[in-house]
Amino acid sequence: MQSALISWRVGRPLLRLRGRSSRPSTLLGQPRPAPAPRPYASGAAQAVLDKPDSLSDASTREKAPESKSFAVGMFKGQLTTDQVFPYPSVLNEEQTQFLKELVGPVARFFEEVNDPAKNDTLERVEETTLQGLKELGAFGLQVPSELGGVGLCNTQYARLAEIVGMHDLGVGVTLGAHQSIGFKGILLFGTKAQKEKYLPKVASGEALAAFCLTEPSSGSDAASIRSSAVPSPCGKYYTLNGSKIWISNGGLADIFTVFARTPVKDATGAMKEKITAFVVERSFGGVTHGPPEKKMGIKASNTAEVNFDGVQVPSENVLGKVGDGFKVAVHILNNGRFGMAATLAGTMKAIIAKAVDHAANRTQFGDKIYNFGLIQEKLARMAMLQYVTESMAYMLSANMDQGSTDFQIEAAISKIFGSEAAWKVTDECIQIMGGMGFMKEPGIERVLRDTRIFRIFEGTNDILRLFVALQGCMDKGKELSGLGNALKNPLGNVGLLLGEAGKQLKRRTGMGSGLSLEGIVHPELSRSGKMAVQALEQFATVVEAKLIKHKKGIVNEQFLLQRLADGAIDLYAMVVVLSRASRSLSEGHPTSQHEKMLCDSWCIEAAARIQESMTALQSDPLQQELFRNFKSISKAMVERGGMVTSNPLGF
Amino acid sequence: MQSALISWRVGRPLLRLRGRSSRPSTLLGQPRPAPAPRPYASGAAQAVLDKPDSLSDASTREKAPESKSFAVGMFKGQLTTDQVFPYPSVLNEEQTQFLKELVGPVARFFEEVNDPAKNDTLERVEETTLQGLKELGAFGLQVPSELGGVGLCNTQYARLAEIVGMHDLGVGVTLGAHQSIGFKGILLFGTKAQKEKYLPKVASGEALAAFCLTEPSSGSDAASIRSSAVPSPCGKYYTLNGSKIWISNGGLADIFTVFARTPVKDATGAMKEKITAFVVERSFGGVTHGPPEKKMGIKASNTAEVNFDGVQVPSENVLGKVGDGFKVAVHILNNGRFGMAATLAGTMKAIIAKAVDHAANRTQFGDKIYNFGLIQEKLARMAMLQYVTESMAYMLSANMDQGSTDFQIEAAISKIFGSEAAWKVTDECIQIMGGMGFMKEPGIERVLRDTRIFRIFEGTNDILRLFVALQGCMDKGKELSGLGNALKNPLGNVGLLLGEAGKQLKRRTGMGSGLSLEGIVHPELSRSGKMAVQALEQFATVVEAKLIKHKKGIVNEQFLLQRLADGAIDLYAMVVVLSRASRSLSEGHPTSQHEKMLCDSWCIEAAARIQESMTALQSDPLQQELFRNFKSISKAMVERGGMVTSNPLGF
Repeated sequence: MQSALISWRVGRPLLRLRGRSSRPSTLLGQPRPAPAPRPYASGAAQAVLDKPDSLSDASTREKAPESKSFAVGMFKGQLTTDQVFPYPSVLNEEQTQFLKELVGPVARFFEEVNDPAKNDTLERVEETTLQGLKELGAFGLQVPSELGGVGLCNTQYARLAEIVGMHDLGVGVTLGAHQSIGFKGILLFGTKAQKEKYLPKVASGEALAAFCLTEPSSGSDAASIRSSAVPSPCGKYYTLNGSKIWISNGGLADIFTVFARTPVKDATGAMKEKITAFVVERSFGGVTHGPPEKKMGIKASNTAEVNFDGVQVPSENVLGKVGDGFKVAVHILNNGRFGMAATLAGTMKAIIAKAVDHAANRTQFGDKIYNFGLIQEKLARMAMLQYVTESMAYMLSANMDQGSTDFQIEAAISKIFGSEAAWKVTDECIQIMGGMGFMKEPGIERVLRDTRIFRIFEGTNDILRLFVALQGCMDKGKELSGLGNALKNPLGNVGLLLGEAGKQLKRRTGMGSGLSLEGIVHPELSRSGKMAVQALEQFATVVEAKLIKHKKGIVNEQFLLQRLADGAIDLYAMVVVLSRASRSLSEGHPTSQHEKMLCDSWCIEAAARIQESMTALQSDPLQQELFRNFKSISKAMVERGGMVTSNPLGF
Repeated sequence: MQSALISWRVGRPLLRLRGRSSRPSTLLGQPRPAPAPRPYASGAAQAVLDKPDSLSDASTREKAPESKSFAVGMFKGQLTTDQVFPYPSVLNEEQTQFLKELVGPVARFFEEVNDPAKNDTLERVEETTLQGLKELGAFGLQVPSELGGVGLCNTQYARLAEIVGMHDLGVGVTLGAHQSIGFKGILLFGTKAQKEKYLPKVASGEALAAFCLTEPSSGSDAASIRSSAVPSPCGKYYTLNGSKIWISNGGLADIFTVFARTPVKDATGAMKEKITAFVVERSFGGVTHGPPEKKMGIKASNTAEVNFDGVQVPSENVLGKVGDGFKVAVHILNNGRFGMAATLAGTMKAIIAKAVDHAANRTQFGDKIYNFGLIQEKLARMAMLQYVTESMAYMLSANMDQGSTDFQIEAAISKIFGSEAAWKVTDECIQIMGGMGFMKEPGIERVLRDTRIFRIFEGTNDILRLFVALQGCMDKGKELSGLGNALKNPLGNVGLLLGEAGKQLKRRTGMGSGLSLEGIVHPELSRSGKMAVQALEQFATVVEAKLIKHKKGIVNEQFLLQRLADGAIDLYAMVVVLSRASRSLSEGHPTSQHEKMLCDSWCIEAAARIQESMTALQSDPLQQELFRNFKSISKAMVERGGMVTSNPLGF
């Protein structure tokens, strides 16, 4: 390993010049690309430097008269194509060139230096890898170059995350916990002083960062955290107390983004406890951590409890506004989701290559197994899942780079879809490989163990499904009733949604008037485009009907909400691949016919799922019976403490 | 641990008296139950002792005028209720009593002595556990008591396997590889001399057994093994050469059931290579093994390569008839599948208890999480999967104990269903537990790692799906065309099925004449019964239509076969739970209303899946397009060596 690193170091350029370094490098000589002429191409990280201290996404959004989000629109029965057609290409030539020059070295680093199996066994990232990554600049990919980072926009970051995901999710989580959430808050909401103080040292990897939200009693219900930060009488600092669990990089980090309750005066002058975000240094004192957690996967990454015991945090280390901590947390997580989808698109690409290799070389029943329909279907489905995830990831990163502030539903969908797709693809690769897949040696089982956490962390997929459905319903609800703020925090107890106003609504008859993707999708995809439109109409009809029926009570209809979320996911996936395949067809890309098949296959099945599920939701009394049964069955299970039935022998 | 074992040893009885032991025990004093009055209740193991050296299942079956198998019937559009209604109760009072006295000590042993987490870490079963299991008689549960075993019938074995599955699948695989397949061949096909020589020492655990079929180039395609056994000129022995891989207990066993090619004279007098089974002792010399394989799960069980290098195997150690080895292997595996389903039903029961415990105690959003519809649905689905698996396992074991020889499709379905259900249930438990589920400490991640192999070994679920569909089609094909032996080895290249005769067949119109479960299922389940009948009619209609369309070519229609298999699995599952819930309702069992809900919920969804899938198969051109797409997509992937599409950036 050591020698590999050295030879790699000698032979290949570093990604960027760091202040402390004076070594020449081919890349170093090259100036950073100038801001692109298009407004969205200047890089989100760059832009953020000029917008300190603001919750700009939220404020922009409040002002926006009509959302540009496709996902928001689909809940309303609208075909909002602005962000999704044509499939966005946001990088200018210079940005593309810069990225291309990064891709090679990063890929070679992971091929030649990093050893994922060894990291997994050691239960830490090898020092040679960490050192190499620091020298590559991998700890500050989106930090502006003026502050020591590589200054990448989201799309560029996605491309490198994809490479990390192809090779080592343990390293991916280490890097992601650091920059995608650990110090992302400073990038998004930091003051100029905070940025100048902290970004250079986190970008260099000198200091590792961690994101401290989860507590023993507060997982999915992030708003219920108990950590507290009490302002000093002099106003100069806050005293922070609390325990955070399952913190990635928790045992290694020096810089923590910490969320705690602070007393805040509300409009009436009464004191209320609201969540505030802080930048906390380990050097403040009173910060300790537990031993590394023993986990199923991503073992190379450090996960630990972090305790804050009377930590004195200077008031200038409040991140964002006092009391805005929950928003800060949500924005950080929203802003990081594209990276997870991109990472997992890379994971799937690597896994698929291994599955194909096995299928192409393994002979059974006198034939290479890829000749069997059973294997063909598996491979094709794996390809579809990768294609959708990848299309979502780059759609999302592009939308963000284009300056969109309305991508929360899309971000949640991408996280859900990507994490479930990666799980399925890896699981299927093991099945294709049979006994060999279950062995440690080919490394697929490690990836399966690694991918398991992605459906849980940074918002479980279950909670995100509720978020997708409720956020969509909220937007629809606004339009229906004008109760704009009814469902501000869709996971809390809102109690307002739609209210009395909803009752006045009549169900619109026939949503399908005039919606079409004709002329928007490529003509060769027009059938799939029609399927998507029809699915959207069915979906929106059910959304409206259910909102009218349940009104604010919809927040408690989790059976329904999950199915709406699944419909939304399928629908967004259809549109994303329709857009991407249309672009390929229009450009005459050599793989365009292949993409058409992936897209058509996806649309055939997704449309059928949506139709079936929406039809059942609308009119099927059996669905209602199922829901009632689930309730009763689970209630009895809780009373009994497990299975209610004994085995057929009765004992 | 040591002390726990001692206290357990002192306080609790051993299951049975072994020759070498003279310790008194409460159980020991009790005589073994006399053979039950019902013919099926005397215990399969006992019966086998009187039928040495025969492939009785197969021969019986050839003679049978009409199969009693429900699964065979459903492919023909027949409602063959003999084996499935009423839900069988095969144990007489004495057998029940005997079993009850075993259940307590075995359960306590696993609760108090065995440490699954430690076994997993050590990557072997702790010696104290192994020793305790030997003393419990757990290594020879189905060996007749005259030969040192516990003499259990299949149903009794299933009940104890369930307990093992609740606690430690690594131990379960060690025990199962030993007796469910390792020496099962001796029980089923051994001569009197072979039984008397080997069964006492394997039953005591003095010698561990292993089943040696898989080879590097021969996994699912078991018939393609290359190991060879050449008879000596004197006829006294065979010289065995070959390499077997992924052999459970391979590094520990002293007795091996080995499959190898032998030259056999066929009817025309020409020499052909056919597979023969042998009992091989390590002490014969020339038997070596590789290091323990590093695996994803079931780490406590030993898995190793076993090499046979010029091993001289006495001719009297041929198991079954020379050249009948493939049948022997298939029969052993068929006979063991009920145990896997029972084991995994136990696993699910334990996992569900943990999930329920978490759901009942975890508060988020101000409420215990079991109050959320999302969690309720998960728990209810987990219960349904456990209920179906358990119902299948005990249905199958009972059918076998009743003397059925026609349960291959049911056995395959139970293995497929049980292994997939256990995987889903365990995965869902982790999701319910969130971050905690991903940690090693609560032990769910270990079970998920353990359960992964069950979908692969002893016949991958993919191959078993093809088997289910093809075996069913063969039986249907026989009826249609009289080509009884057309599809004898459904996974080989048969090339005969239906042949020209099939062409003469006309599709029958309207299958649904007169089939009914009225009066067979409990009246409260009559709607679900009707759903099952309707599903059966739809299923059988498609089977017939597809047989007529594809004739012998159906063996190559794997897309179709998989969907037929899924239909068959859903259908059999419906009938099994209809039967079990009917029995509970008739008996006024306290959980009968709960079982009705489980049964109804299962039937609602299974019927919908069957209807949708069969409708699509019959008439939907989109399905055909999908199949073509899958073929083309996967072909291009193989040519390209992975994903054909680059990412949206194009590089």
